[in-house]
Amino acid sequence: MRICALWTGDELLDGRIQEANGRSLGAWLRARGHRLWRALLVGDDEDGLVAALSWLVTEADLVVVAGGLGPTEDDRTRAACARVSGRELVRDADAWQALRARYARLGRRWSDAAARQAERPASAARIPNPLGSADGFVFFVGTTPVVVLPGVPREFDGMLDAALTPYVAPSSTDAQELWLYGIGESETNAVARDIATEAGVSLGWCVQSPLVQLRWEGRGEAVTGAGTALRRAFAPFVLPEGHRRPETLVLELLRGGGATVAIAESCTGGAIASALTDVPGSSAALLAGWVTYANDAKVAALGVPREVIVAQGAVSAEVAVAMASGARRAANATWGGGVTGIAGPGGGSETKPVGTAFVAWAGPSGVHVARVAYPDRDRREVKALVRDFALCFLWRCLVGDLRAVASWVGVVSCPEAEERRLALADRN
Amino acid sequence: MRICALWTGDELLDGRIQEANGRSLGAWLRARGHRLWRALLVGDDEDGLVAALSWLVTEADLVVVAGGLGPTEDDRTRAACARVSGRELVRDADAWQALRARYARLGRRWSDAAARQAERPASAARIPNPLGSADGFVFFVGTTPVVVLPGVPREFDGMLDAALTPYVAPSSTDAQELWLYGIGESETNAVARDIATEAGVSLGWCVQSPLVQLRWEGRGEAVTGAGTALRRAFAPFVLPEGHRRPETLVLELLRGGGATVAIAESCTGGAIASALTDVPGSSAALLAGWVTYANDAKVAALGVPREVIVAQGAVSAEVAVAMASGARRAANATWGGGVTGIAGPGGGSETKPVGTAFVAWAGPSGVHVARVAYPDRDRREVKALVRDFALCFLWRCLVGDLRAVASWVGVVSCPEAEERRLALADRN
Repeated sequence: MRICALWTGDELLDGRIQEANGRSLGAWLRARGHRLWRALLVGDDEDGLVAALSWLVTEADLVVVAGGLGPTEDDRTRAACARVSGRELVRDADAWQALRARYARLGRRWSDAAARQAERPASAARIPNPLGSADGFVFFVGTTPVVVLPGVPREFDGMLDAALTPYVAPSSTDAQELWLYGIGESETNAVARDIATEAGVSLGWCVQSPLVQLRWEGRGEAVTGAGTALRRAFAPFVLPEGHRRPETLVLELLRGGGATVAIAESCTGGAIASALTDVPGSSAALLAGWVTYANDAKVAALGVPREVIVAQGAVSAEVAVAMASGARRAANATWGGGVTGIAGPGGGSETKPVGTAFVAWAGPSGVHVARVAYPDRDRREVKALVRDFALCFLWRCLVGDLRAVASWVGVVSCPEAEERRLALADRN
Repeated sequence: MRICALWTGDELLDGRIQEANGRSLGAWLRARGHRLWRALLVGDDEDGLVAALSWLVTEADLVVVAGGLGPTEDDRTRAACARVSGRELVRDADAWQALRARYARLGRRWSDAAARQAERPASAARIPNPLGSADGFVFFVGTTPVVVLPGVPREFDGMLDAALTPYVAPSSTDAQELWLYGIGESETNAVARDIATEAGVSLGWCVQSPLVQLRWEGRGEAVTGAGTALRRAFAPFVLPEGHRRPETLVLELLRGGGATVAIAESCTGGAIASALTDVPGSSAALLAGWVTYANDAKVAALGVPREVIVAQGAVSAEVAVAMASGARRAANATWGGGVTGIAGPGGGSETKPVGTAFVAWAGPSGVHVARVAYPDRDRREVKALVRDFALCFLWRCLVGDLRAVASWVGVVSCPEAEERRLALADRN
């Protein structure tokens, strides 16, 4: 089914506002086995709307229009739809009564401009708006329904079910997705493509660095079969089903094992704690966090030996290990984390350029430490990448399999540390 | 000038990803007095891309394409452009060399799939990508330039200047903006509209809660005049020029006064420290942060008296004050912050519903504490709103003027606190 969207509004085109209804329409369609085929954004210009709508209806089985239904002069959608449908604009009696009642209830001033919101092309049927003033409507061009809704996202969302259900039959197409960590998009290409081809599903990639999403769709059994094969092929890199972010996975694993965590952050500056606390119920597992930018704070709060900072530098595997052990001890947590690095833009050196970070996790299986490097990234990006690395690294520590971490990191250093038990020293 | 955009990617149409380059392209064009005329989103489908591009070039003076330049099977933009341009795909020698060097430097595995990223239509000129693997290119259909860029937003943003400047002549329209905190959009409406009308500029609003942006454009002198009048009219609420986020402002004020800060966070879970550490150079002012979800952590790290937690509850003005004072003392900082609240979805009560938070700042002028409430918001939203409130509150503490805070907060409570000097008790 070819479903097209037409979004209208100058503010969507000049950088002020991010068009937001596409995502909710896309998700609504996905849940019913469909997808949006094309979406077109145009400004508040009647001729442009007519041209765009005329082009879309020639190719689509359904057109969804949003925006331009308000009371002001720049709201042109009603007039454009009337021209495309070849009929006059008329006042809808029900819409007009509902609108007057709404204005009275809210104490708003009635005006001719307000009354325009009750107009629709003569061939159109009204779609009531339970959350706002401007109703929607639907009309046909040939056999193609054109569903017109207000652009305000909460009103648009609130009307989707009633507006679209008559025209969108649930499809038998199924879809699944998985998220990978520790393997690059291009490294997955050949294997994933072969699996998809053999199973007869269509496959797509989506990168949200450092995670890669694979998504495939097709008939039910083919989708399930491809899923099994893809999960097997990329086993060490796949986030378990139901997870698309490492923090939810880490918290589930911690809570499942009755374990707790504390985290000392330097270069990520609280971003790891903040990601964990985004998850409802995280307080059961996250005992404490420290942001220890200053060396004094590392010494005072975490017991990092000052001589280690002096000898190795604040950005070093040894300091990361001492922070992790200190956090674990101070909070009496099952796992302690330590992150130190150079987020930039200043502070880099030849041996430790901007984007370098050391991440350590201290826990029942010993102290694991890794060095990561994200060159050519700005400060926020380095913080986000190191945050996600640290969380994925903890995931791999919790399941006792660090292979994916090593292949992603490239370099894993194993300094002499107070625990003297570095699991990574044994890895292969 | 009719400028069209073509965004490609299944993930933009099925609800997975919000298309994001439209906003930065729109802003880039606005800064040069232009706007986007149309934008079209299509999936990873070569025929669809060819149809869309063929339609756009007939009407546009410039077409910007983004997405589908990666190494995987679903990246179809190169092939579609070759068809529209009527030329073969060829390997660009410079692009290929740069790509090999990049893969070697990052330790990535080279493959045939990776090599595809160095291809372009034979008539196209390469546009180097300084931040990623896939270069862009430009070719002409008739006299219309088609500029093709990678879809990854940071790469797209990083290439805009070099890619578009040759084809977009600056227009004479000027624009300015300001950011307000502590006053609602509708409260500014009449005054701002009158100023804009008198100055002869066109004005727009954009809300990024809890901040409101005003933006106006027109001829140079009119824009400057409107700016002076708007800044005067909304003086206590305006972020100083050069600032659009409170954390940059707070850090500038702290550093200007040789002052430092430490922050103890419960419900915001590290989000305030993370916002501050997003700013380059923040380590000079941010001494330490604590995430003290557990009561034990509040007692141990910050010296919050256990009896205060028991008597008042962990979410109370008294605990916020004790956290702020404890953070200030423990880090020996000029200012200490304490934030405790209920981010949800659980944990609310009749008197302290989800979205309630207490924020305290302890500093040379005493301890300031406020209660805020953000009902009907989800956990992430509550965290972000409380974070921004806390930073704006610190801004107003640092400048010694809490009027805007009070008008925003609605309720400011002033409990008996250990410092016994609550500046807010004196305010009118």
